[in-house]
Amino acid sequence: MGQQAINLRDKLALLSEQWSPRVIAEMNDYQLKLVRMEGEFIWHDHPDTDETFLVLEGRLRIDLEDGAIELGAGELYVVPKGRRHKPSAREEAKVLLIEPRGVINTGREHGARTAQNDVWI
Amino acid sequence: MGQQAINLRDKLALLSEQWSPRVIAEMNDYQLKLVRMEGEFIWHDHPDTDETFLVLEGRLRIDLEDGAIELGAGELYVVPKGRRHKPSAREEAKVLLIEPRGVINTGREHGARTAQNDVWI
Repeated sequence: MGQQAINLRDKLALLSEQWSPRVIAEMNDYQLKLVRMEGEFIWHDHPDTDETFLVLEGRLRIDLEDGAIELGAGELYVVPKGRRHKPSAREEAKVLLIEPRGVINTGREHGARTAQNDVWI
Repeated sequence: MGQQAINLRDKLALLSEQWSPRVIAEMNDYQLKLVRMEGEFIWHDHPDTDETFLVLEGRLRIDLEDGAIELGAGELYVVPKGRRHKPSAREEAKVLLIEPRGVINTGREHGARTAQNDVWI
């Protein structure tokens, strides 16, 4: 960890692709990641961990099997461990994710939407 | 964890005292806390854990033994485990803290500035 402030806006400007979380910081064995989301993601879950979504810009919808969460800028939601969810955004949302190191964006649903993990910006 | 968005601005409005972190969410055994900081805190460290400071409003300075970090809104810093630090703010800063459940605000330096822990808003 470098001895300097990490500026979210500066780091967001470095995200070249949507749906590809990039690590900006680590705290113990947790990572803070930024991701640009637009359109529909896939249904998936993370069987071993909760996952925090904090919306920085735009609006994010998180469909759950029994409802949906709508998040605007400055709002967060913690998806509980094992809960199937599907993020989507009609227009691009910029999101801070917080979760343990090693979490794959598509959970157990490996496939075309699976992003390379543990890439720093 | 309730099935609804957590709005940072709404939660900040509920903070009645400075230097008293209040929990707004849990992710596994980690907590997200909001705190209003103004003036000088005490030097302390957390021997067992890193600690993340994300400034939401205002400016925060974190003195370290070998330098200082200046954070504006939208900037974060992870104080490494065991590193002595002293937060301060000339005008009030509103800050999101992320750290494991059970972390005391003054670390090993219990005293007048030690806030009640694990209080939710």
